[in-house]
Amino acid sequence: MKKSILVLCALAVTVALPAQVRHEMQIPDIPGYKTLKGDMHIHTVFSDGTVWPTTRIDECVWEGIDVLCMTDHMEARLQRSLNKGYLDDRHVDRNTSWEIASEYAKGQGVLVIHGCEITSSKMPPGHFNAIFTQDNNLIEKAKADAGKDELKGAHNAFVEAKRQGAFLTWNHPHWSRQAPNETVIYDEHRQYLKEGLVNAVEIFNLSDGYTPEGHHWAVENGLTLVSGTDSHIPMFRSINFEAGELRPVTLIFAKEKSEGAVREALDAHRTVVFAEGKVYGDEALLKALLEACLKFEISQGEKEVILTIYNDSSIPFVLGKAAGSEQWVAKRHMYIQPFEHKKLKMKYNGKKLIPKDAVFALNYCIENFFVDAGVPFVYCFQ
Amino acid sequence: MKKSILVLCALAVTVALPAQVRHEMQIPDIPGYKTLKGDMHIHTVFSDGTVWPTTRIDECVWEGIDVLCMTDHMEARLQRSLNKGYLDDRHVDRNTSWEIASEYAKGQGVLVIHGCEITSSKMPPGHFNAIFTQDNNLIEKAKADAGKDELKGAHNAFVEAKRQGAFLTWNHPHWSRQAPNETVIYDEHRQYLKEGLVNAVEIFNLSDGYTPEGHHWAVENGLTLVSGTDSHIPMFRSINFEAGELRPVTLIFAKEKSEGAVREALDAHRTVVFAEGKVYGDEALLKALLEACLKFEISQGEKEVILTIYNDSSIPFVLGKAAGSEQWVAKRHMYIQPFEHKKLKMKYNGKKLIPKDAVFALNYCIENFFVDAGVPFVYCFQ
Amino acid sequence: MKKSILVLCALAVTVALPAQVRHEMQIPDIPGYKTLKGDMHIHTVFSDGTVWPTTRIDECVWEGIDVLCMTDHMEARLQRSLNKGYLDDRHVDRNTSWEIASEYAKGQGVLVIHGCEITSSKMPPGHFNAIFTQDNNLIEKAKADAGKDELKGAHNAFVEAKRQGAFLTWNHPHWSRQAPNETVIYDEHRQYLKEGLVNAVEIFNLSDGYTPEGHHWAVENGLTLVSGTDSHIPMFRSINFEAGELRPVTLIFAKEKSEGAVREALDAHRTVVFAEGKVYGDEALLKALLEACLKFEISQGEKEVILTIYNDSSIPFVLGKAAGSEQWVAKRHMYIQPFEHKKLKMKYNGKKLIPKDAVFALNYCIENFFVDAGVPFVYCFQ
Amino acid sequence: MKKSILVLCALAVTVALPAQVRHEMQIPDIPGYKTLKGDMHIHTVFSDGTVWPTTRIDECVWEGIDVLCMTDHMEARLQRSLNKGYLDDRHVDRNTSWEIASEYAKGQGVLVIHGCEITSSKMPPGHFNAIFTQDNNLIEKAKADAGKDELKGAHNAFVEAKRQGAFLTWNHPHWSRQAPNETVIYDEHRQYLKEGLVNAVEIFNLSDGYTPEGHHWAVENGLTLVSGTDSHIPMFRSINFEAGELRPVTLIFAKEKSEGAVREALDAHRTVVFAEGKVYGDEALLKALLEACLKFEISQGEKEVILTIYNDSSIPFVLGKAAGSEQWVAKRHMYIQPFEHKKLKMKYNGKKLIPKDAVFALNYCIENFFVDAGVPFVYCFQ
Repeated sequence: MKKSILVLCALAVTVALPAQVRHEMQIPDIPGYKTLKGDMHIHTVFSDGTVWPTTRIDECVWEGIDVLCMTDHMEARLQRSLNKGYLDDRHVDRNTSWEIASEYAKGQGVLVIHGCEITSSKMPPGHFNAIFTQDNNLIEKAKADAGKDELKGAHNAFVEAKRQGAFLTWNHPHWSRQAPNETVIYDEHRQYLKEGLVNAVEIFNLSDGYTPEGHHWAVENGLTLVSGTDSHIPMFRSINFEAGELRPVTLIFAKEKSEGAVREALDAHRTVVFAEGKVYGDEALLKALLEACLKFEISQGEKEVILTIYNDSSIPFVLGKAAGSEQWVAKRHMYIQPFEHKKLKMKYNGKKLIPKDAVFALNYCIENFFVDAGVPFVYCFQ
Repeated sequence: MKKSILVLCALAVTVALPAQVRHEMQIPDIPGYKTLKGDMHIHTVFSDGTVWPTTRIDECVWEGIDVLCMTDHMEARLQRSLNKGYLDDRHVDRNTSWEIASEYAKGQGVLVIHGCEITSSKMPPGHFNAIFTQDNNLIEKAKADAGKDELKGAHNAFVEAKRQGAFLTWNHPHWSRQAPNETVIYDEHRQYLKEGLVNAVEIFNLSDGYTPEGHHWAVENGLTLVSGTDSHIPMFRSINFEAGELRPVTLIFAKEKSEGAVREALDAHRTVVFAEGKVYGDEALLKALLEACLKFEISQGEKEVILTIYNDSSIPFVLGKAAGSEQWVAKRHMYIQPFEHKKLKMKYNGKKLIPKDAVFALNYCIENFFVDAGVPFVYCFQ
Repeated sequence: MKKSILVLCALAVTVALPAQVRHEMQIPDIPGYKTLKGDMHIHTVFSDGTVWPTTRIDECVWEGIDVLCMTDHMEARLQRSLNKGYLDDRHVDRNTSWEIASEYAKGQGVLVIHGCEITSSKMPPGHFNAIFTQDNNLIEKAKADAGKDELKGAHNAFVEAKRQGAFLTWNHPHWSRQAPNETVIYDEHRQYLKEGLVNAVEIFNLSDGYTPEGHHWAVENGLTLVSGTDSHIPMFRSINFEAGELRPVTLIFAKEKSEGAVREALDAHRTVVFAEGKVYGDEALLKALLEACLKFEISQGEKEVILTIYNDSSIPFVLGKAAGSEQWVAKRHMYIQPFEHKKLKMKYNGKKLIPKDAVFALNYCIENFFVDAGVPFVYCFQ
Repeated sequence: MKKSILVLCALAVTVALPAQVRHEMQIPDIPGYKTLKGDMHIHTVFSDGTVWPTTRIDECVWEGIDVLCMTDHMEARLQRSLNKGYLDDRHVDRNTSWEIASEYAKGQGVLVIHGCEITSSKMPPGHFNAIFTQDNNLIEKAKADAGKDELKGAHNAFVEAKRQGAFLTWNHPHWSRQAPNETVIYDEHRQYLKEGLVNAVEIFNLSDGYTPEGHHWAVENGLTLVSGTDSHIPMFRSINFEAGELRPVTLIFAKEKSEGAVREALDAHRTVVFAEGKVYGDEALLKALLEACLKFEISQGEKEVILTIYNDSSIPFVLGKAAGSEQWVAKRHMYIQPFEHKKLKMKYNGKKLIPKDAVFALNYCIENFFVDAGVPFVYCFQ
């Protein structure tokens, strides 16, 4: 009897699978859709950023980002301190950063979506992104027409953006500058919802991370989940790639890699957010994503079942044994790193031999996947 | 007013500080004590492992581990499948792996503690480690004297180990093999406690990770917290260093780097566990550890406070803004990677200028530091 | 005219291609043959090493090594200082390390070749490896029969090994202990050659690196080129993987992954040595290897030719422009890192438009590939 | 006697020392001087680059570069294809990129040197950098005054730059566009030398690497050695940091970290070039640099000498045993990676005991350090 006790050695062996360059994100497609990695919120020198538009494309190519929304603040004057008065912002065309970036992106595999950020100094309404715009100058004008009434100005801008066919996102509801201690959903936001002026919520932003309140409000109201870096500085100064950090992304499940398909997917809410090693999204999409990333083989012997899991993605998986599989003796907790494979050996609880009629089904809580704020996703390996 | 809105750029810049070789753990000392990194549980070919004792020392040197407890199963026959009958286990001296390892470790900076694992096939009592033993053969004999009565055998062994002056740890109370669905503290364990036969709980083990129940029981009863890899295979097959994983360790705060000082620290409960990026321990020790790892400077201007944090350790810090600092507008969430520094700019809530009499004090929940199961540690930067 | 001068920007863009886990070597197959990565020389605790045989297999799996030759010193007594007298070397069977390793390797994808090192205290003859042996005890006995006459003992051993069908390699002709200041080919070695007692030369060894003299002698006499680490300690202490170092290997081009096919390839001299970023071998094999590793596309426009090179291997390539392509204006020097791709834009020398009848052919010296000592390999991209 | 043969195990053990973040270059100071890491040649969107000036500073901070020379082509029109006609190059002030960069660099530890590149479409004279300029517009004007006579225009520009107190460098004498098959030193260059119009040679440039001809000409004529990336695109697209590549740099040994001290050091020829793992420079400086980077301890016993070498820098060292130390049995070849330490055990040739009067002195050729084209540096460890 002692012998069996002692065979605990090598119950789980970690083997390094062929992986990818650390900074280049790899996420497989799901059935029926391409998985596009998008950053929905970025700035350049054409508002208050410090980066030239082409460099934003270079960053995307280097990191494997497929979709970039150019969302310079529409109201922003060019960085005078940076351009020494040379660039005269009175003549700035609010479409320029998109024009430069999309020209440069040709043939490089990055879809560059036209857009802008409509910026209010207070909450409500805070900041909103309009993407798929036609002419940002008209949105600026619509806002300016309201004079000092910021709320009216923002509303004017939203309406004009919508008139152009834009997709509107409420950015960072939890931004510490505008919501320092609590995240409030204001009546104005509920009103925009009724008017069709908010399509998505930015539930992750580099500045303050994840917003549970924003996530829950989006789930409750059937809004699309998006993430944006909102980066104003070069990405290599914002993200510590060497420490394994990756750019937070919106995973967009699109019928093809085209601007139209991205729009269709956003309208259909087919997105999940992957940020700081966590994934947020609809249960069906999380299931499809997990099954695309993790390949597994189950081999049932007389005495044990061997479950081999191959992670073929840049997403880590944190597993905790969940209720409903009491008969299987399995590791309670396990990390599966990006591009790692893990082998799991399981016995039948209380028996030396697995009963002939035992059906293998093992529930794990995927502790870093969330279907709503605070609600993790449970998956059954079978 | 708009201008001020738009200066959100570069609120936090990540700069890579001189860091360390990824796999070599660096944890600074705390006031009055050296911080020793210990693995309290290991196996070799002298029980059911597959690694020669000297390699265990090579691993420690490579990873910066200071203390290694040699805890081969006392009952284990040598791996016959591995040694082809050449090594005749009838003649095995149960002290051999320690002898080989400690001889080899001389001059290499690794303290090798004599010990063994007292192994029962069932819970209770499960597996216990005895460290600081004198002669493992006598412990084996004490256990064997009980014949088939495993509980009695274990008790005999504990008593003999104590007679030799050993320090006893209840290993992996949550091991899936012996506690597949719930972690139970048995009457027997309470009884050992009364008899002084349990000094510590292994709250983290590579096989099943962290045990909240074990942690809480240790806290409740003033036991020492330890972690052990319980590794039977080479460390490079158990830990994915390339993905940034580190060996789980017991941080031992000892008066000096000596066997005696390690024992004194263990007896005085001066340990915390650092495993999978999380730290578990007593509040005062966590505070001392944080203050040893993070250096910070506070510079208060007219309009903003700048808090610069330097992480000088292999420990990551996950910060979430906590109650009690409502007046300061600070990032709600922040990662500080090992050897990274971060700069944080804060305004005074609702005011352009910081009031003259404002006292800076900013509470962050250290979301990966725990004082008890589920209870995070809160720190005030001031 | 100035404008054209200034378009020197972006002549070569480095893009990180999907790469592999740094330590896991990836070398593609060549037409007709599998490329097997072999370490032909290793030690364990069963001679004077400090590593258990199974760990040697774990290392190979982790690094992607396909073939391992177990070559413990045949004469070596077990490390008494390590085993505390417990392992009685009088009873050592000289086949044990191979038996343990090959048993453990089953199903893990590593071919374990039986062998031993025949060790003389002086040059000549120095150290020889015999691989594909049947019973190392008989070789030990043959050697011992010669008593104190080392030269005769070595010869006896070689003859007995050959009788068993072994493949014999002269190890590290340049070992600093036996050839401290010059590498000498002795009459004895020429005599062994005549008698068919030397099949290969170890032209790279971790201890002293590469031997130009040994390489040239092997080329001159049509011997097989091999590399061996000769490692006595764990590989993670010998090779600095984190700095990008890889284990030196013999690349064996075999008809299939089997012991028989390895032997056939060695007998047919189908090997090259890849060590410290350099590759040594026969011109035809180097060409086949380069063409397997580097995929390239040539696209000829009116004004320029674009050559895109994809490196799909762990081998770096150092290119220097060579004679014979004077008409093409190309970078004089270029590194192609493992798993990198590089784009090269070339103009026609002295003309704005490429002449209609110009045939693209660009010679690069592959400065880290050698066909003989000091003789680099030249490749024509066309 | 056999026993001693077999102790070849562990002759050299590689231990990973605390190292630095891979991409942040660390080079220690030498006696009397600070070691400043400089990139003497860079481009931005203000000529034909694609990067905004501030990003050039961010790159320097991230990589640990201390000195950056802003050398936009003086003649270059802004990239029309990139700026969509928005930036009107007729109004460009040729000093703007330096103004933006130097403003942004304040407090970030990067010295930004004013300069420009004087660009001719053919060799001679090719491209020259003028640094420490006062007003680039005047240099542009001086050049334009010569009309279509490029040679005269260049000469005018050099003279005007000198009048402003500039330091002039002949850039990439081996640039494939202007010297596709051979690197020629023209009469014009010799004439400039006489006139004091050339102070330095750029012996390394990212586009074509190292120029032996340029190096030798600089050595022959007592010119300063410099390196420049000449990068037009973001650094993370030019340098493969993940593969261990570093930005090529000019190491400037300056009395302090100030613009004046940089100038004094350049005038005094106190520079070496560190590029692609190789170092080029004057023998005395190479010696001082090696002794600053490598700390070593020598411990002489009865039977062996132990030499422990600690590399405390980002520079690798490639050692080959050199003539003059025949009595010491040492490894013939050795790599010392950045931040690695290596231990070397040596015996006395032909003797078991080291003679009492033996003086330890071991010559190694530093195979990646060059005092002139093709002439490596030899160092004596004693």
